[in-house]
Amino acid sequence: MKTLVICSGGLDSVTLAYKVAKERELVGLLSFDYGQRHKKETDYAARAGEALGVPHDLIDMRAIGGFLSGSALTDDVDVPDGHYAEENMKVTVVPNRNAIMLAVAFGVAAAKGADAVATAVHGGDHFIYPDCRPGFIDAFQTMQNAALEGYADVTLYTPFVNISKADIVTEGVKAGAPFADTWSCYKGGEQHCGRCGTCVERREAFHLAGVEDPTVYADPDYWKSVVEAH
Amino acid sequence: MKTLVICSGGLDSVTLAYKVAKERELVGLLSFDYGQRHKKETDYAARAGEALGVPHDLIDMRAIGGFLSGSALTDDVDVPDGHYAEENMKVTVVPNRNAIMLAVAFGVAAAKGADAVATAVHGGDHFIYPDCRPGFIDAFQTMQNAALEGYADVTLYTPFVNISKADIVTEGVKAGAPFADTWSCYKGGEQHCGRCGTCVERREAFHLAGVEDPTVYADPDYWKSVVEAH
Repeated sequence: MKTLVICSGGLDSVTLAYKVAKERELVGLLSFDYGQRHKKETDYAARAGEALGVPHDLIDMRAIGGFLSGSALTDDVDVPDGHYAEENMKVTVVPNRNAIMLAVAFGVAAAKGADAVATAVHGGDHFIYPDCRPGFIDAFQTMQNAALEGYADVTLYTPFVNISKADIVTEGVKAGAPFADTWSCYKGGEQHCGRCGTCVERREAFHLAGVEDPTVYADPDYWKSVVEAH
Repeated sequence: MKTLVICSGGLDSVTLAYKVAKERELVGLLSFDYGQRHKKETDYAARAGEALGVPHDLIDMRAIGGFLSGSALTDDVDVPDGHYAEENMKVTVVPNRNAIMLAVAFGVAAAKGADAVATAVHGGDHFIYPDCRPGFIDAFQTMQNAALEGYADVTLYTPFVNISKADIVTEGVKAGAPFADTWSCYKGGEQHCGRCGTCVERREAFHLAGVEDPTVYADPDYWKSVVEAH
């Protein structure tokens, strides 16, 4: 099944790219630049494309990003430190981001003759992002079946939708994903900061999976205090 | 109900903008530049925004348009003459265009605090474009309800989905829409060509509605031969 993977360059989506390359037919990686601060991660998506020998396309969505204000990921709002928790991470929601990216990806898949679009939404995202929940995924597929009827038949593949980030680390080990060549930090500095929600979540996932974390963090121990306090 | 209207500058969407301004609370017009040849029409959307005293935003989707190849509207494929008919108009389908535009519009509506997105899909579009059919519209709303749950409540308003283009002309008369300040021709020349599918459909709609067509066509009588042959 010819599958196009939406790949930000993060741990989850690079793992997904390697899993698809191993188990299905990977035809390309797609990244989106919507003006996010952690744009650096898309360099890691490009690297994954090279390593896997498939095209990596970066779609410039910045013109759209400007209209979707109100999020710390694109605006001049401080990215909060700490564990993903509803109160402080709502600020990182870009309205309708997943629906927009998936709709574009389905258009590209239809144009390229791919059979599936894969995205790395996972169980840990559910409680904060409504467009990462299984109900959204099902509704999106139903919408696309109607939109492309008679023109294309594209399936949404979300193998991580009901598993945790720790389980994704385990999947990554199986698929041979190069964890050191992935980027999670929302702050986009030289190294992973170790303090923002995604850094804490990343470090914790390796810990829970019992897999050594090859990431270099500016503040390597901060995650412990957050996880203990949680 | 604060409503954002997707307005290409065509007859249908300008009529919709005037209808919404009259019957609801119009908060803005949104156009999309996805590299279409008939980009000229977006100037007419800007004009409608000025006349109605609301902001008009043009969202640059050209970076995406480049990935959605295979359509005469964006590629170097000849735009077919004649009546909209399945065989020759499929070439004007941009894959997933409506789903993409609507998803972006819902994101903008959520960011701006609007309650509704209005789009001028109409009965005459059904048989050729699957993403203009009522089934798609319903599925899209269901998907958006899931995607924005807890963040925003945005309704898709499609008052023309079950009526013909001729009925839209009648609606336009009621709403005081300035038909001469709308653009339909897919060829994007100085005047409406009078020969392409949208020109023929436009001319015929005025004829069926019994309303005088103020449009200047390069070939004003071509539509008759097409309609008679159909």
